[in-house]
Amino acid sequence: MSMTKPTLLLDKSKCLRNIERMSTKAKQANIGFRPHFKTHQSIEIGNWFRDFGVTGITVSSFDMAEYFAQAGWLDILVAFPFNPLEMKRLNELASISRISVLADNIEAISTLQKPEKQVGFYIDIDTGYGRTGIRSDQFQQIEDLLSTSRQNPKLDFSGFYCHAGHSYKARSRTEQDEIHQKAITDLSALKKHFAGYDPRVLFGDTPNCSIQTDFQCVDEITPGNFVFYDLTQVSIGSCDEADIAVAMVCPVTGKYPDSHQILIHGGAVHFSKETLPIKGQLTYGKLVDFTQSGWFPMQDGSYITSVTQEHGVLVVAGELFERARIGDLMAFHPVHSCLTANLMKQYTTLEGKVITML
Amino acid sequence: MSMTKPTLLLDKSKCLRNIERMSTKAKQANIGFRPHFKTHQSIEIGNWFRDFGVTGITVSSFDMAEYFAQAGWLDILVAFPFNPLEMKRLNELASISRISVLADNIEAISTLQKPEKQVGFYIDIDTGYGRTGIRSDQFQQIEDLLSTSRQNPKLDFSGFYCHAGHSYKARSRTEQDEIHQKAITDLSALKKHFAGYDPRVLFGDTPNCSIQTDFQCVDEITPGNFVFYDLTQVSIGSCDEADIAVAMVCPVTGKYPDSHQILIHGGAVHFSKETLPIKGQLTYGKLVDFTQSGWFPMQDGSYITSVTQEHGVLVVAGELFERARIGDLMAFHPVHSCLTANLMKQYTTLEGKVITML
Repeated sequence: MSMTKPTLLLDKSKCLRNIERMSTKAKQANIGFRPHFKTHQSIEIGNWFRDFGVTGITVSSFDMAEYFAQAGWLDILVAFPFNPLEMKRLNELASISRISVLADNIEAISTLQKPEKQVGFYIDIDTGYGRTGIRSDQFQQIEDLLSTSRQNPKLDFSGFYCHAGHSYKARSRTEQDEIHQKAITDLSALKKHFAGYDPRVLFGDTPNCSIQTDFQCVDEITPGNFVFYDLTQVSIGSCDEADIAVAMVCPVTGKYPDSHQILIHGGAVHFSKETLPIKGQLTYGKLVDFTQSGWFPMQDGSYITSVTQEHGVLVVAGELFERARIGDLMAFHPVHSCLTANLMKQYTTLEGKVITML
Repeated sequence: MSMTKPTLLLDKSKCLRNIERMSTKAKQANIGFRPHFKTHQSIEIGNWFRDFGVTGITVSSFDMAEYFAQAGWLDILVAFPFNPLEMKRLNELASISRISVLADNIEAISTLQKPEKQVGFYIDIDTGYGRTGIRSDQFQQIEDLLSTSRQNPKLDFSGFYCHAGHSYKARSRTEQDEIHQKAITDLSALKKHFAGYDPRVLFGDTPNCSIQTDFQCVDEITPGNFVFYDLTQVSIGSCDEADIAVAMVCPVTGKYPDSHQILIHGGAVHFSKETLPIKGQLTYGKLVDFTQSGWFPMQDGSYITSVTQEHGVLVVAGELFERARIGDLMAFHPVHSCLTANLMKQYTTLEGKVITML
């Protein structure tokens, strides 16, 4: 495999191990597994999930829903508060796949035209993240929404969906546990209160699904990032660095002895500008030991500490700096694999196979 | 024009005005204009420059160089320290276009194989930015590089290239002027010292080229971002907000009265995660007044203050919040138009025409 420019490498075996681990966790908890495909956005990688019995998936846009529906996925949740401007696409999609949407306000439900086919909807529940959703203790607001939805006989209430994304901001294991336990407690109360509707409870971001074990009241977990993981997930404690299944390979194109800086072709249009603070510095990627057979975490971390559109800069210590040559390839774990994948638009496996995506 | 999902709108007349203004500035200073095409990455927008007499362009990757060479551009500078792994593509390109590359170290020059055709090279000069380049006072290092390059008869020394990107970090007009004047002084000394080589001096980032007027010693300016401008450039003082030629149109999909938050479909995969600090908050885009005939800056700024992959959140005040409806379209100036354009992959003009890009 000869790489001459920034290339997103995928270690398929690590990726399959990540899928298997999450799938096993769901099976052992006796709950469903509806992975979020926004991270990989790839038909081929999506197909790897079928071997683990996955039939229902989560996406976050109608673009993704169309892409995966065309690849034969017949049960798709578009987990983004429904945008009424997408009514035409919803109807087209609902004619080839079972589509569910997300709602968190009466206005969206009441302005929703009657879909041509039955469409399921989940109510988006907020247990403290504060991005979207109805607060989990607002029973009356939920009741009002359900009563409005009944005027639209093509809408089927399916249950509650909760992305407790504040798990990404927890600063300790105790805080993580509290966020998770509050979510589970709140969703249990909700499920009990609305038991007459027999609601399903969908839950799960990658940190909670990776770290936690108590999923009582949850019917399906919906994590996405775990398929690759990344440095952010390592910092949260969701995975080990050895679990990260993608690495950005970048050519070395500059060496600056005065500053010990190395310039790589690999910038904001490859890594994204997602940052992770490490020892008081914002970082964009972490150097790994890159060999012909794959890559391995390095003990002494070297980080990309500056990116512009195509440029990345890292400062590296003595021997590593001396050894680096112009034209070498260096590899890096990304801070946020979802955004890196979205920018790179394709993967190259360790075996040299190119995998396309949306 | 019916938009149902995040769409990057382009106001062609503003864009042409930006091009004309920079072109006129170069003509009045009696210097060349070699615009950087990394911002728009579009053959069609590139063609608009031809009416202003532009024949030479700047790009920052071989992907862009190939794309524009195929569109008939015959004089292309790849302004990124040369990556020897791209030798094959360099040869292919040099057979259809006059290609120049950038170099800032002997290792790259000495390992560079002999190109099949003549290739120009510029020496990358650092006047204080500290990203790439040889420090402008290191005459001996430059002399050594030139002497090494003479062993490769296919390499033609063309001159010096300087991107004084620390202009983006200046905190006052005085600091801006100092950065610019130091660059011009240093480049003048360099040009004088190496006068025997008759070197051309290429200079210019968008802030310096927009704000400054003294370009003595400069032969060509190479700004890129000015074609669209953005909020970052407004904050630097390179342009007025009314000059920004692109806006992201995003559907409103959520309203949260308790927090006065509005949710839009428009997140990190549309705006990028480039931030601009405004009143102590990191922002990702600024709301504009969006009408059928275009958009207009708003006096009281409302900013996107949080983005995740597909979600964007803004907090808006009283009347604006009340007026917003689920399914409305809101438009925003981006913080960094280069990264937003790179993510969106196409433009839609106010007339509804779709313009593709690399």
